[in-house]
Amino acid sequence: MPDSNLLETFETPSETPFLIEHVNEEFTSVCPVTGHPDFGSITLRYQPSKVCVELKSLKLYHQSFRNEGIFYEAVTNTMRDDLVACLQPTWLQLVTNWKGRGGIRSTITASHGDVPQSWQGK
Amino acid sequence: MPDSNLLETFETPSETPFLIEHVNEEFTSVCPVTGHPDFGSITLRYQPSKVCVELKSLKLYHQSFRNEGIFYEAVTNTMRDDLVACLQPTWLQLVTNWKGRGGIRSTITASHGDVPQSWQGK
Amino acid sequence: MPDSNLLETFETPSETPFLIEHVNEEFTSVCPVTGHPDFGSITLRYQPSKVCVELKSLKLYHQSFRNEGIFYEAVTNTMRDDLVACLQPTWLQLVTNWKGRGGIRSTITASHGDVPQSWQGK
Amino acid sequence: MPDSNLLETFETPSETPFLIEHVNEEFTSVCPVTGHPDFGSITLRYQPSKVCVELKSLKLYHQSFRNEGIFYEAVTNTMRDDLVACLQPTWLQLVTNWKGRGGIRSTITASHGDVPQSWQGK
Amino acid sequence: MPDSNLLETFETPSETPFLIEHVNEEFTSVCPVTGHPDFGSITLRYQPSKVCVELKSLKLYHQSFRNEGIFYEAVTNTMRDDLVACLQPTWLQLVTNWKGRGGIRSTITASHGDVPQSWQGK
Amino acid sequence: MPDSNLLETFETPSETPFLIEHVNEEFTSVCPVTGHPDFGSITLRYQPSKVCVELKSLKLYHQSFRNEGIFYEAVTNTMRDDLVACLQPTWLQLVTNWKGRGGIRSTITASHGDVPQSWQGK
Amino acid sequence: MPDSNLLETFETPSETPFLIEHVNEEFTSVCPVTGHPDFGSITLRYQPSKVCVELKSLKLYHQSFRNEGIFYEAVTNTMRDDLVACLQPTWLQLVTNWKGRGGIRSTITASHGDVPQSWQGK
Amino acid sequence: MPDSNLLETFETPSETPFLIEHVNEEFTSVCPVTGHPDFGSITLRYQPSKVCVELKSLKLYHQSFRNEGIFYEAVTNTMRDDLVACLQPTWLQLVTNWKGRGGIRSTITASHGDVPQSWQGK
Amino acid sequence: MPDSNLLETFETPSETPFLIEHVNEEFTSVCPVTGHPDFGSITLRYQPSKVCVELKSLKLYHQSFRNEGIFYEAVTNTMRDDLVACLQPTWLQLVTNWKGRGGIRSTITASHGDVPQSWQGK
Amino acid sequence: MPDSNLLETFETPSETPFLIEHVNEEFTSVCPVTGHPDFGSITLRYQPSKVCVELKSLKLYHQSFRNEGIFYEAVTNTMRDDLVACLQPTWLQLVTNWKGRGGIRSTITASHGDVPQSWQGK
Repeated sequence: MPDSNLLETFETPSETPFLIEHVNEEFTSVCPVTGHPDFGSITLRYQPSKVCVELKSLKLYHQSFRNEGIFYEAVTNTMRDDLVACLQPTWLQLVTNWKGRGGIRSTITASHGDVPQSWQGK
Repeated sequence: MPDSNLLETFETPSETPFLIEHVNEEFTSVCPVTGHPDFGSITLRYQPSKVCVELKSLKLYHQSFRNEGIFYEAVTNTMRDDLVACLQPTWLQLVTNWKGRGGIRSTITASHGDVPQSWQGK
Repeated sequence: MPDSNLLETFETPSETPFLIEHVNEEFTSVCPVTGHPDFGSITLRYQPSKVCVELKSLKLYHQSFRNEGIFYEAVTNTMRDDLVACLQPTWLQLVTNWKGRGGIRSTITASHGDVPQSWQGK
Repeated sequence: MPDSNLLETFETPSETPFLIEHVNEEFTSVCPVTGHPDFGSITLRYQPSKVCVELKSLKLYHQSFRNEGIFYEAVTNTMRDDLVACLQPTWLQLVTNWKGRGGIRSTITASHGDVPQSWQGK
Repeated sequence: MPDSNLLETFETPSETPFLIEHVNEEFTSVCPVTGHPDFGSITLRYQPSKVCVELKSLKLYHQSFRNEGIFYEAVTNTMRDDLVACLQPTWLQLVTNWKGRGGIRSTITASHGDVPQSWQGK
Repeated sequence: MPDSNLLETFETPSETPFLIEHVNEEFTSVCPVTGHPDFGSITLRYQPSKVCVELKSLKLYHQSFRNEGIFYEAVTNTMRDDLVACLQPTWLQLVTNWKGRGGIRSTITASHGDVPQSWQGK
Repeated sequence: MPDSNLLETFETPSETPFLIEHVNEEFTSVCPVTGHPDFGSITLRYQPSKVCVELKSLKLYHQSFRNEGIFYEAVTNTMRDDLVACLQPTWLQLVTNWKGRGGIRSTITASHGDVPQSWQGK
Repeated sequence: MPDSNLLETFETPSETPFLIEHVNEEFTSVCPVTGHPDFGSITLRYQPSKVCVELKSLKLYHQSFRNEGIFYEAVTNTMRDDLVACLQPTWLQLVTNWKGRGGIRSTITASHGDVPQSWQGK
Repeated sequence: MPDSNLLETFETPSETPFLIEHVNEEFTSVCPVTGHPDFGSITLRYQPSKVCVELKSLKLYHQSFRNEGIFYEAVTNTMRDDLVACLQPTWLQLVTNWKGRGGIRSTITASHGDVPQSWQGK
Repeated sequence: MPDSNLLETFETPSETPFLIEHVNEEFTSVCPVTGHPDFGSITLRYQPSKVCVELKSLKLYHQSFRNEGIFYEAVTNTMRDDLVACLQPTWLQLVTNWKGRGGIRSTITASHGDVPQSWQGK
């Protein structure tokens, strides 16, 4: 089940602000109503303040949702909250993109902080 | 015929504002003039205030237009009005994308509320 | 030859502002210099005030340019003027996209009114 | 060699501001260092004030660079200067897109005047 | 190993501000933890003040990372710092795009100076 | 319900063999088990012997499946049989392409007669 | 109206067999039933025996169909017959690709002679 | 764990041979060496003799591999064997397409019986 | 002007037959009628017998057509003949792909020898 | 330097013939003439007889070419020979796809044994 203790960090290598994006196209969890698996991708974007998330630990954190019965909206908000708590970033955006059920594809976007000027208009 | 009573909701899982997008590429209604079927996709984007729309009920609501004779513009405005009444969202955007008749493809966009900053520029 | 009397309208189905886009990828007129046919697409976007353009009448209006010798820029400005006169819209944008001559593709954009906030950034 | 006298103009067909874009994907000049040919595309965007550039004359002007030894940056700034002198436009943007040498693709963008509101966000 | 002395410059050919973008899709360095090679692309965008970077020297500078064990974030910030020191540009943006490890693709964006108006909204 | 009497024909305009392909991307029927609509495209390919199918009658025939509860495999075989009976073609191929249920997309291919040499390898 | 006298030829530059393909994506004729224009592309492939078709004359021949009321199948067979009579080729294939009416796209393929071995499997 | 008892069949609706293809882009199993999840798609193609596989039962059969530690090659051959035993088809092809590990994407293809003439060259 | 003396070869590194393909997307020559430049790509495929063409010499050979007035068909047959004379290959195919004039794109294919089994069906 | 001792195998899990394809899009070696790195992808396809190549060992084998000065044709034939010696497959195909130098992209294809019927026409 989702376990934010899996997340590890390392010190940011620069004091000048910069942006990081990690896209994981191999994500799966389980629909809590039907028990069928959901498939999607997870996009994490953030401007670090003091620490960055270690990539392999992020992957293991994602894998901890594999057999969890959980709604799209809850996956998105849980990840946003866990990563904000762990990274204390200046800005963070968590986007989940679901392959869909019954012909409907869904995208959920949760944020923390103001969009940095250098990301606007992208 | 279109029936907004099919729409069901659940409580939003987070008090922090976030955005939801549902894209249904399998939509059909009927042209009220020629009686021929129209095919298109329906995109719903919104920032929930207190409730979210349940996905299967949204699908059944879309299906209730299947044999209705109704113009593109009326489908779009009816859905915007029904969903705003049901969800009372901070912001909502309803986009219909039609495969076209006689070589002309159409897109109709109806909105409610101000575009959230985190959606601008997308 | 171009005939704006072909354009018909119907009353807008909603008092709440919304946006309409019609894309016709099957347009042809004639180059007034060489006599060779020009091929392109016509995109009409507008925010209706009181009336909307009827789709089949728009198609017949486009077809009235078929054997007219007329420059790209004149097609674009003529259509903008004819449609503004007919629809009295809050905002209107007319874009013509030409397949090109001698290896050069062209796009001409004419507008009327201020871009609505819900269209910006698209 | 580059010859701005090839450029011809015609009077703009409308006093209402509008935008013009011409994309030529068939451009070649010569690298002044290696003598090897460079291939790219030239995009011209502008808002005319009084005159528009005639399309065939633009093509011949582009062809006058064919056997010229000239750097990317110089092609771009020369074209911007020649076209501004010839058209006296409200706004003009000249973008060159190069297929690349040694695995590096380049794009150079030169401008004149403020970006019109109807082009922003495109 | 990364060697900023490889970078060479030439005087900018125009006093009017303009923008330059170089995309190198053939970049490789080494993961300092696993020793496996990383593959990605490097995008450099800048508005020159007095000098431009010479293209072949940029390529050799990129090649100097080939067998260096270095993290994504460090590649990005090192290149930003080296190029800002060398070019003293009005604005500079350095984007690295990594093919990914364990199913996660990453993009890192580092900047210097304010985004020029003519680049916004691109 | 499916009605092959809607199909009309006209005499083939040439005695030299040739091939015809009609692709309808706007097809819908109903799943006989769940009652949910199915969406797909229908591709008809044939080499006429004496008659060709009239295009508008083919469209009306497709529309007669709109509210029929019928499996993918039955749609495909019914159409193949109806069209072979109506057209008596030298060769005929009927392909249905379904958008899918529960994440699985399906394609069903039914044929009549030997593949013509001029179609092989396409 | 269609005029095969517009077609001109030149002597084939090689006695060794080779293949020629010309694709015209800018073709229009008129539907003889509705009077609405049809849009499509014309692909001509052939192995010349003694003569090749001159490209500009082929374009003018295509343009002679512009205001002709004629069915898809008749366009295809007429062009095949006219070009076989004019070129006497070893092999010839004429493919017309129509943008469609009422949601149905069509492709008609007419041939002359056996497919050359070097074209098979393409 | 993989359970072929989940597979259900229904009688084929036609005695004339035809082909069926089901593509499931939402498949996951586990690498038996590293314990990390593998993601891929499963394509089943077959010519039924007496029975067809029921679609929902095929989906549940695929899901039974979700937490199984199993190599790519074994998934492919197990599925081919299970489906041949269950369907006794004239021809069957099972293709697995894996998103890859360490930058290498893999495709495994197992077959039963001779490729039908109507599938060749596709 | 075209100069086959520019072509250089090296001994094939293997006695086992293999296939080589070189695609040059940066080719230009001149239309002998209008004097306007033609742009296209050149694809060379062959099975070497004793020697392979050296890549830089192939590039210089292509560049020798830059300012030559020459038809599409002549470029193709000249290159086929020059390369067959130089390489004495088991099989050779020369394909030229032209961006087109007046809306018509052309492809010319010339060959030497029988298509190898391992290339068929590609 | 290239080291075929890195290759490891495991016993094939099925006695029924099947096909395996591994695509590595992250390959680099060095040009023996210029010393600049070459980038490309390596595609291995084979029908195993008794053993399959272990995926991680294949990756390490590819990495052993990283700093080797070696021509395209030699990479391809060396890999074909090493893998045939190691796997003794019924059929094997080795394709290298190079990003190109001086605007020319190359593909080299080496084979061993006859193409299996189930691969033909793909």
